[in-house]
Amino acid sequence: MAGWNLETATAVRDAVAAGEVTALAVADDCIAAIAARDGELQSFVDFDAKAARKAARTAPAGPLSGITVGVKDIIDADGWATQCNSPIYAGHRPNRDSAVVGLLRAAGATILGKTVTVEFAFAQPGPTVNPYHPGHTPGGSSSGSAAAVAARLVHVALGTQTGGSVIRPGSYCGIFALKPSFGLIPREGVKPLSESLDTIGWYGRSVADLALVLSVFQAEPVTPPPQRLRIGLCLQPPWSVATGPMRAAIRRAARRLEGAGHIVAPFGHDALLAPLHQAQDDIMSVDAARSLRLEKLHHLDRLSPRLQERIRRGEAIDGTTEREARRLAEAARRDLDHLLGSWDAILTAPAPGEAPEGLGSTGDAVFNKVWTLLGVPCVNIPVGRGPKGLPLGIQLIGRRMDDARLLAVAASVADVLEAEA
Amino acid sequence: MAGWNLETATAVRDAVAAGEVTALAVADDCIAAIAARDGELQSFVDFDAKAARKAARTAPAGPLSGITVGVKDIIDADGWATQCNSPIYAGHRPNRDSAVVGLLRAAGATILGKTVTVEFAFAQPGPTVNPYHPGHTPGGSSSGSAAAVAARLVHVALGTQTGGSVIRPGSYCGIFALKPSFGLIPREGVKPLSESLDTIGWYGRSVADLALVLSVFQAEPVTPPPQRLRIGLCLQPPWSVATGPMRAAIRRAARRLEGAGHIVAPFGHDALLAPLHQAQDDIMSVDAARSLRLEKLHHLDRLSPRLQERIRRGEAIDGTTEREARRLAEAARRDLDHLLGSWDAILTAPAPGEAPEGLGSTGDAVFNKVWTLLGVPCVNIPVGRGPKGLPLGIQLIGRRMDDARLLAVAASVADVLEAEA
Repeated sequence: MAGWNLETATAVRDAVAAGEVTALAVADDCIAAIAARDGELQSFVDFDAKAARKAARTAPAGPLSGITVGVKDIIDADGWATQCNSPIYAGHRPNRDSAVVGLLRAAGATILGKTVTVEFAFAQPGPTVNPYHPGHTPGGSSSGSAAAVAARLVHVALGTQTGGSVIRPGSYCGIFALKPSFGLIPREGVKPLSESLDTIGWYGRSVADLALVLSVFQAEPVTPPPQRLRIGLCLQPPWSVATGPMRAAIRRAARRLEGAGHIVAPFGHDALLAPLHQAQDDIMSVDAARSLRLEKLHHLDRLSPRLQERIRRGEAIDGTTEREARRLAEAARRDLDHLLGSWDAILTAPAPGEAPEGLGSTGDAVFNKVWTLLGVPCVNIPVGRGPKGLPLGIQLIGRRMDDARLLAVAASVADVLEAEA
Repeated sequence: MAGWNLETATAVRDAVAAGEVTALAVADDCIAAIAARDGELQSFVDFDAKAARKAARTAPAGPLSGITVGVKDIIDADGWATQCNSPIYAGHRPNRDSAVVGLLRAAGATILGKTVTVEFAFAQPGPTVNPYHPGHTPGGSSSGSAAAVAARLVHVALGTQTGGSVIRPGSYCGIFALKPSFGLIPREGVKPLSESLDTIGWYGRSVADLALVLSVFQAEPVTPPPQRLRIGLCLQPPWSVATGPMRAAIRRAARRLEGAGHIVAPFGHDALLAPLHQAQDDIMSVDAARSLRLEKLHHLDRLSPRLQERIRRGEAIDGTTEREARRLAEAARRDLDHLLGSWDAILTAPAPGEAPEGLGSTGDAVFNKVWTLLGVPCVNIPVGRGPKGLPLGIQLIGRRMDDARLLAVAASVADVLEAEA
């Protein structure tokens, strides 16, 4: 037990490259940590040490060698079941990797197992608890992935975001999270909830860890960000939705960034952003009704009541409403591309506050839905704890397809804030 | 041998519902037709009579009972291989249905086998020949599906369109074709080429056949089209790209529609549409590079040179170019929604002309790419033969998510033109 599970992905990569440790030894530390902690945490849904060790032994040499990865249980990984936290998919074993898992494997990563998702990545929670307090939600829908990275069971974990399912759990669990630009990460082999919105993202313990995974999919930024960053402070949706501690965390971050010589100025545009909440909801609903039509036909009574209700809502949305929602989104994407030419990032809240108490809900995606709809990359940076002892974060948002550049900005911001996962 | 393969899907549905014939007997006629003709036609890539008969015997009763379906070989169907016309996927057998195949099965359809695609639905042709002349291409990428329906081997067949891969083969093979609105038909279990563009569509032998399949996915139109249709005549791209026979076919169709009391007037908007050709090409290229990244990593030398070249082109497109292409598309989608509020359909060419000679290319998607990018539903209606004895068609285009209404318009137009597949 050498504690390799406690290291960042970047540190593991360096140690493996230097011959200081093997991928198998790193995996063994993670396996021991899972054995010690996951009984309480419940972040993994399909885990067996033998398969995990085999994955470590057979991983090719590459930029991610030695790095262990948890995979949200709506994403196929050959050798593991994909059960979507639904009895409909109990025991379902796909016979090949999703594209994203295949690409991480090819880069040398060790796939360690499957992590808990809420039912079909929509809303009905799984058993995972918050690593900081077992009576609080870890957030969702990528519950197990966020909890497992926060608890040092794996270095990196894959999630997906349709509303706020990558960034919110990242904030609740006090880790770094990236929801990349829509369209950047191939989704083949991922169970769809909304084809218009679903975006694969991941968790890590530093911005460098997030960037290391991104490098598998997108090259380094061509233009590095300037020394003096221009940060737009966005208090949308109505800032009263954010709790006092979250508002304080954002104010503190803004002050420290200004103190370090960066520019922080209001990013308004409420008229652009406000109508997008309903548009996101409408598009998610119509898409979910389409994506889950077969499950509804064959297994209606095995879908949770809240998912049944959402499917009915989607079926009731007519073409005019759907077109209007898509038009709003399209117009706003175009406008935001233009606006973001003047900023290095937008700063806003990743969630209303600390993780709420209880496991019956995974919290509110109100600070995430609009950015998901806009297809822009989003990062969560942990910024310490709130009054309940649970993590708080800040969210940075960049221009679409400029993900590597956003991470370069996030690295500067995390430095200023002395952010730690 | 009762010739049930020669009937339309709608006629088969009625006969099965009336107890005049069983799904198995219908399938047997199709199996016999495949045995007789497919040696020359080469429309099926994975076919065995036993599996086809089993599919017919086990199909549940439903609105598509008795109707036989061919499935393009990038779409998973449990029990058959999915080989994507690539040696990389030789013998690959998925262990579950794609969503679209599952939904057709649940509606009672008989899945008969897998039809030839061009390599990964991009460009490198398969062996299928045009049913009207074996020296001519059937079009692509849904080559086998179009040829099989035209040759009366199946009643309906699934294709996908990323550039012009449903409508163009429909025109070249003289059958009815629908490329639905982007986002309407769930794509789970379909090998992606471009997640931003790929759209599942299908072929049939009448507008009613197309509508019967659509009814599995979208309800009847709420507002039926008016008695007197408003048809916008679109001569974009530069009309000189259309051959003389195609231009004559469009003129003739316009005259007959006017003769029947409908309104046909110019639909201009060249400034809106012209820049979209390059945007479609750019988006397809960046997306293809992402979708096929794993195949490129592991099997570069097993990709055709033209696909390798396309992936390289996609990798070379930078974020600024991609954003600009997406912005153009988004702005145009919004504008077209608005413009199409004043028309019942746009009338244009589905392809430059008759199917070109030779099997080395599947023809030019120049009349399709823009509409695919715009996400609007498109229909091919066959309108007889050209001077080479090969089919010609016209294309009708509707407002997105108004697919059922477009088919209602297409039914009126097909009546006026006395269109026959």
